[in-house]
Amino acid sequence: MYEHHGDRVTGLTVAYIGGGSRGWAWGFMTDIARDGQISGTVRLYDIDREAARRNKIIGEKISAHPDARSRWDYEVSDSLREALDGADFVVISILPATFREMRGDVHLPERVGVYQPVGDTVGPGGFMRAMRTIPMFVEIGEAIRDYAPDAWVINYTNPMTLCVRTLYEVFPGIRAFGCCHEVFGTQNLLTHMLAALGIAEGVRRQDLYTTVTGINHFTWLTRASWRGTDLMPLYAAFARDHAAEGFDDGGDRNWMNNSFACAHRVKFDLFLRYGAIAAAGDRHLAEFMPGWYTSSPEKVREWRFGLTSVDWREQDLQRRLKRSADLISGAEPITLEGSGEEGHLLIKALLGLGDMVSNVNLPNRGQIANLPSGAVVETNALFGFSRIEPVLAGPLPGSLLPLISRHVQNQENTLRAALSCDRKLGLAAFLNDPQMGRVSPEDGGKLFDDMLENQRDWLPEGWFR
Amino acid sequence: MYEHHGDRVTGLTVAYIGGGSRGWAWGFMTDIARDGQISGTVRLYDIDREAARRNKIIGEKISAHPDARSRWDYEVSDSLREALDGADFVVISILPATFREMRGDVHLPERVGVYQPVGDTVGPGGFMRAMRTIPMFVEIGEAIRDYAPDAWVINYTNPMTLCVRTLYEVFPGIRAFGCCHEVFGTQNLLTHMLAALGIAEGVRRQDLYTTVTGINHFTWLTRASWRGTDLMPLYAAFARDHAAEGFDDGGDRNWMNNSFACAHRVKFDLFLRYGAIAAAGDRHLAEFMPGWYTSSPEKVREWRFGLTSVDWREQDLQRRLKRSADLISGAEPITLEGSGEEGHLLIKALLGLGDMVSNVNLPNRGQIANLPSGAVVETNALFGFSRIEPVLAGPLPGSLLPLISRHVQNQENTLRAALSCDRKLGLAAFLNDPQMGRVSPEDGGKLFDDMLENQRDWLPEGWFR
Amino acid sequence: MYEHHGDRVTGLTVAYIGGGSRGWAWGFMTDIARDGQISGTVRLYDIDREAARRNKIIGEKISAHPDARSRWDYEVSDSLREALDGADFVVISILPATFREMRGDVHLPERVGVYQPVGDTVGPGGFMRAMRTIPMFVEIGEAIRDYAPDAWVINYTNPMTLCVRTLYEVFPGIRAFGCCHEVFGTQNLLTHMLAALGIAEGVRRQDLYTTVTGINHFTWLTRASWRGTDLMPLYAAFARDHAAEGFDDGGDRNWMNNSFACAHRVKFDLFLRYGAIAAAGDRHLAEFMPGWYTSSPEKVREWRFGLTSVDWREQDLQRRLKRSADLISGAEPITLEGSGEEGHLLIKALLGLGDMVSNVNLPNRGQIANLPSGAVVETNALFGFSRIEPVLAGPLPGSLLPLISRHVQNQENTLRAALSCDRKLGLAAFLNDPQMGRVSPEDGGKLFDDMLENQRDWLPEGWFR
Amino acid sequence: MYEHHGDRVTGLTVAYIGGGSRGWAWGFMTDIARDGQISGTVRLYDIDREAARRNKIIGEKISAHPDARSRWDYEVSDSLREALDGADFVVISILPATFREMRGDVHLPERVGVYQPVGDTVGPGGFMRAMRTIPMFVEIGEAIRDYAPDAWVINYTNPMTLCVRTLYEVFPGIRAFGCCHEVFGTQNLLTHMLAALGIAEGVRRQDLYTTVTGINHFTWLTRASWRGTDLMPLYAAFARDHAAEGFDDGGDRNWMNNSFACAHRVKFDLFLRYGAIAAAGDRHLAEFMPGWYTSSPEKVREWRFGLTSVDWREQDLQRRLKRSADLISGAEPITLEGSGEEGHLLIKALLGLGDMVSNVNLPNRGQIANLPSGAVVETNALFGFSRIEPVLAGPLPGSLLPLISRHVQNQENTLRAALSCDRKLGLAAFLNDPQMGRVSPEDGGKLFDDMLENQRDWLPEGWFR
Repeated sequence: MYEHHGDRVTGLTVAYIGGGSRGWAWGFMTDIARDGQISGTVRLYDIDREAARRNKIIGEKISAHPDARSRWDYEVSDSLREALDGADFVVISILPATFREMRGDVHLPERVGVYQPVGDTVGPGGFMRAMRTIPMFVEIGEAIRDYAPDAWVINYTNPMTLCVRTLYEVFPGIRAFGCCHEVFGTQNLLTHMLAALGIAEGVRRQDLYTTVTGINHFTWLTRASWRGTDLMPLYAAFARDHAAEGFDDGGDRNWMNNSFACAHRVKFDLFLRYGAIAAAGDRHLAEFMPGWYTSSPEKVREWRFGLTSVDWREQDLQRRLKRSADLISGAEPITLEGSGEEGHLLIKALLGLGDMVSNVNLPNRGQIANLPSGAVVETNALFGFSRIEPVLAGPLPGSLLPLISRHVQNQENTLRAALSCDRKLGLAAFLNDPQMGRVSPEDGGKLFDDMLENQRDWLPEGWFR
Repeated sequence: MYEHHGDRVTGLTVAYIGGGSRGWAWGFMTDIARDGQISGTVRLYDIDREAARRNKIIGEKISAHPDARSRWDYEVSDSLREALDGADFVVISILPATFREMRGDVHLPERVGVYQPVGDTVGPGGFMRAMRTIPMFVEIGEAIRDYAPDAWVINYTNPMTLCVRTLYEVFPGIRAFGCCHEVFGTQNLLTHMLAALGIAEGVRRQDLYTTVTGINHFTWLTRASWRGTDLMPLYAAFARDHAAEGFDDGGDRNWMNNSFACAHRVKFDLFLRYGAIAAAGDRHLAEFMPGWYTSSPEKVREWRFGLTSVDWREQDLQRRLKRSADLISGAEPITLEGSGEEGHLLIKALLGLGDMVSNVNLPNRGQIANLPSGAVVETNALFGFSRIEPVLAGPLPGSLLPLISRHVQNQENTLRAALSCDRKLGLAAFLNDPQMGRVSPEDGGKLFDDMLENQRDWLPEGWFR
Repeated sequence: MYEHHGDRVTGLTVAYIGGGSRGWAWGFMTDIARDGQISGTVRLYDIDREAARRNKIIGEKISAHPDARSRWDYEVSDSLREALDGADFVVISILPATFREMRGDVHLPERVGVYQPVGDTVGPGGFMRAMRTIPMFVEIGEAIRDYAPDAWVINYTNPMTLCVRTLYEVFPGIRAFGCCHEVFGTQNLLTHMLAALGIAEGVRRQDLYTTVTGINHFTWLTRASWRGTDLMPLYAAFARDHAAEGFDDGGDRNWMNNSFACAHRVKFDLFLRYGAIAAAGDRHLAEFMPGWYTSSPEKVREWRFGLTSVDWREQDLQRRLKRSADLISGAEPITLEGSGEEGHLLIKALLGLGDMVSNVNLPNRGQIANLPSGAVVETNALFGFSRIEPVLAGPLPGSLLPLISRHVQNQENTLRAALSCDRKLGLAAFLNDPQMGRVSPEDGGKLFDDMLENQRDWLPEGWFR
Repeated sequence: MYEHHGDRVTGLTVAYIGGGSRGWAWGFMTDIARDGQISGTVRLYDIDREAARRNKIIGEKISAHPDARSRWDYEVSDSLREALDGADFVVISILPATFREMRGDVHLPERVGVYQPVGDTVGPGGFMRAMRTIPMFVEIGEAIRDYAPDAWVINYTNPMTLCVRTLYEVFPGIRAFGCCHEVFGTQNLLTHMLAALGIAEGVRRQDLYTTVTGINHFTWLTRASWRGTDLMPLYAAFARDHAAEGFDDGGDRNWMNNSFACAHRVKFDLFLRYGAIAAAGDRHLAEFMPGWYTSSPEKVREWRFGLTSVDWREQDLQRRLKRSADLISGAEPITLEGSGEEGHLLIKALLGLGDMVSNVNLPNRGQIANLPSGAVVETNALFGFSRIEPVLAGPLPGSLLPLISRHVQNQENTLRAALSCDRKLGLAAFLNDPQMGRVSPEDGGKLFDDMLENQRDWLPEGWFR
């Protein structure tokens, strides 16, 4: 059990599921080392045990860095149970299956004219990724229920909404929430706008007050202000001015986001159509709409964002594997640059080390009045000692409601299909995705079967009986 | 005021808005003449006063028919107020604008590859028809509020859902409901199935027990039985057997429905995909889906239903005008064949002359738990003296929910756009219709503007400022 | 499995839990013998096995009566499992514990000035009866879940609301409903009113159309009509005219109800205060209110209804035991007088032998919009083949809402307390009952302890740790 | 229009309805003078114009105080319209009628054994005060709708819940909220507890994190923490330890609260019974319960809180009148002691001068899931630029729900009765108050009539037709 010493907490136990992660894990290990208020042990669990072992070495190096303000111990756990037993916090950041399966998610639909910039959230790729990820989260949720029922659980894995939804389905009493930095990027865009308009330089995104609503990767700001300045009319003019050419905000320099940049043209177009600020990268936003922005690679270029190909991901992985080796060998020195994520801050708030408001993915208990109860939504919440209290975002505006609720209902059917290996319901959800709106049911049905087959090794047998 | 005499009611006053109607009005006048339990006066109001005057002659002839069991007087009213003042019942059956506008509704979208079998409910045609119809229903609703607030109001006009929704928006205390015979047709199909399977001959649709749910023209039977026989497994096999070729049920011989026949292939396909019985003509059902069944005239033929062209409607109108003249001149004798509609039966139930259960369009007060409160939905209801009590249809099954709620939300936005002449919201709803799923926003936006322009004379000025 | 033969069903299996019942069981056995459309086997299960055995003899005699139109076989089951396995219908009509415990329920509260006419539904007696009954229904619900999950379950046991609520708590998929004849009595009063006012003689209660809403034994008619006649204004005058002296409707001659008659003064007073027709016997209604009608035996006499003392119940039991013996010995001949209950009719409707509308106790799924979802409420429902579809009663009128929802919330807390043996929550619910409104928390707390102690043998051990 | 200058706002217009108030107004004028960030004009409107005129002098003196950090101008308005036209903020703090009427509210019910410590919120006194206050708030709400529809409106008047509810009933688009310091007092008690337990000295109530839920004056803390310390188990022990004798927290020294002190015995008793911290003064809390704590003056003394008699109020008024004269004459020097209220801080937050979380009375939009939508509830909310976003308090615990929802429903009926002068519904609500639980309906009905008569001059004529 951890202990409070004034404004510090020692003896924390954090279970990191997917602890072999090359990237998220390093960011998290760095963030907690930079923080002077919390310390304890991180248990790394990964089905790739070797990756976890390597991360233990890296974590220890980070903790031992002279600038580190907290000391953390690192352990490798051999089982979920071993990782979870007695854990105070659980972080989940896994890659479901391999790039081979992801390649199918992203690229198989191209044969029917569906180009997906990411393919991990909605659309045919997101659906298929969910089919193999949901059973993994069933297992994780059951393990948490059995071995760490009181732990706080932070999920970073995509498809975010369905991962969190599955945890609550399996264990309704779980204290899980999902964190995502996509909203931060749009908040940063607003600060760049303030600078570009000559209103204020150097505003931090944390200084804005934004009303966040929607679902992960299709999140919206219905209100935004900085001190006494209403940003909505400013953004309206800004979106009109930059609709045609886009806006270059200098990008996010954080390693996690490179090559994921966009010129916000999709974002501006959505604002001009629907009157609210879409708050995610354009490559995510475009996937929630019909093929308006993605019907061909040329169309994507025209809208000035990128398709994150799996080829790129594989090369990127090679870079990160090399980086892992270099960090271990010392060829690359350890530095303590913060990740820009807020996970460690939320952990501190839950320990009573400072209340904060942040956007978070949680089951709807009324924070969005016109979405169904239980659907996982993303809104602001107040984080304090041992509780997360969502802030009411109000009902979704009429213009946004059909866009968002369509995905909410599809995702619920996606969950049901995954849990029961139901091809009929699965195909219904698959075809009802906006990106599939121009595909014939015959072509869509064939694609559905082939995409399931593509990941056969990772699916429950029930699908193939 | 009307009076009860045992099981008869005399002195009823019925205001018929659209009383010049050639078809619906004749059916209604015949139904009430055939019935021995109610009598009184029908006031015919129509902006085409001459048509109302001619229907007065026809109505009087029907009432004077030797086989008529009730005597009804007919009057022509010069204003809504004159028609409504003191009315016990109001029937609304109008044609919003002319076939010229309907031609635009139905055929302009063909240029972007959208073929609409009917074009009066959803899709680009339904949307545009709503833009000119909603203001008319605002006027009618306000007149009812002012002159006949206690009257029961039966609407037959399309788009049904939005017409009824508008009446309640304008006058929340209205006692209005919408009647539609499309469900009857599918109930008849079930009786034909019983005969075709050799289970029972001559079953009447009224002998079935069907659980009705959904919205008008996209209504579904989630359960159906005849006495102790569950029709759902029978229909499952029947749909499979006839999926490829369709089923010829002999059609509905009623004049109102001729040429509207179908082979039910769309209905069977929807059952096989979603597990419930879609309960409307295929030409209506197809319009609620993406272009699966309507992407070209050939595709429609393949699915074995018809596009009701406006050319056909114009020819049909000529036939009906001729028939009107013939009925007046006596060239065609009056006969008392029932229409198959239930309006007069519901009137009798509301007068206490016999409770009954029928499907009806009413604001959702919980009859469909997972659709929004206030949305106009079609379910069964219990009709009795001075009240209509909806029967709980339960929540929509997960597979149907996204299909139906998408239209519910679009329709709400359609209402808002029509009431405030809001081009942005209107276009958002217009583009969000499933039939528009394969149209680019640029082409869609141009079509939107042209279709509004096409009916400019019938729209509020607010649209063109 | 049963079989349909035209409009008859043979081979039904009915499990009767509480099959040793002297009264309800005889009525049920007679009703099904009088009916020509259903036949099969009744399995009698009772913890008093001898009573079940005796009822088997009586049941066989009833079935063998020359006027019987159906033949039924009777069996005695040795366990719940044996009774339930393969049952099509389950009837639950048990006496929880003995008159010794009931004596405590009814009479112990008299020491704090609380006089209960019945003491089996709400009030201190109803609460305490629930404490021992709920665990029994947990056992029954689990057995149904395990051995007869598809059976229809009809409950007659009190406290009705909590018994049905417990079944759904234990097994949410159960197809259970609760039947009670108290509403019938008030419907009969309305027919007597029609006669007394000279409007119509011989109207049957089934000919009325009443909108039923509320909770069992505190059920209300918010609308009532007979053919085209609105009974509400008639009843308003009738209530005023008879408020002071009451109305003698000749009583219900049915043996089940004798000595339970009232002059309807409470019912009239409630109408004049709240504007709706309370639809249960006055002795039940009075228990849901503060001590207005029950603060002393004199007060009860003044309001012209009876306290059903446990002395009377014990004498009545002796009479029924003697009658049981006489029926077996032949000293009393078997007659086939109907019970007036509707259970067998509902069974027939569920088999597809004739749809009907009746009032029924079911979890709220929206039938009463302003009561919580899941609370067991009593409203009309449509019974048909294999389904019960509640009719929307609409929201409770503002005047009734606080009266009824107070009990709904108390009952939910009562359930929670019983399931977890929670003295604190239990006492909170116990003291919050309106009848306890004039009792000090100290006296109330002592009474609570003593009443629990009184039935210690029948309670889970958790209460006494 | 006001203007932002960095972190300061100038040119604000505040309309103060009840601007002749001796006490609240002085506190408010002092708070805004002490604050350096906002300045502008306060318009004082009062039906006692002379009192407003005198407060203008006092306000100007406060503003001119050498320690004042903002300069405010004061005006006396002759009409609501004049006060409201162009106002940015509206403060409402009125005394409905006079102490003569309040005397009836508080003391007439003593004849039936009902002793009310305050008599301005619920109970017979609160009900009657609502009858004359609601029409005043109808007038104020309509004036705000017509003359200052975009203003933020802060209400301090009791009955708080019904005042705010009435404003929203009259003008649903109003931006009104209600502020009350009762919760602060209980938060202060928690800080005293921390000191008494030797855990921490000098903790400020703002440093706690409390989850606030319920309705005004019957507000509860379901969770409370200070940094990493959970206060709930500490309070449980503290309540047990002090249940018998109470706890002396040294009282609140603020002039507004003197003589209103209590020993928290009621609060402790409620905690021990219901498991949450009741967060208001005991004299308020006791009024929401049956006569447990108030059945006689002796009982009140035993529970160690005070009955605030109207005699005391009248003497206090004399003191405050004298103080008003002394402040004007200079006999009493102006000092700038803060009031402890947060109104000026909330104004600043709404202007974008610093987000904050505070408890506030607002219509329920989901912040308390199991209370009806639209009911005015008290929970935390996030205050920021131009918006108030309530924090989800979650559903009320089962033990509290019946206590609170009973008052919510009574208050809704109280509103309806006041708006329509409905004696029947009014009496139903009046008798359903817990304090009236031991009063016979006959005595209660007589009291109801007499109390209405007592304030006849202040009621609409509709009551006496």
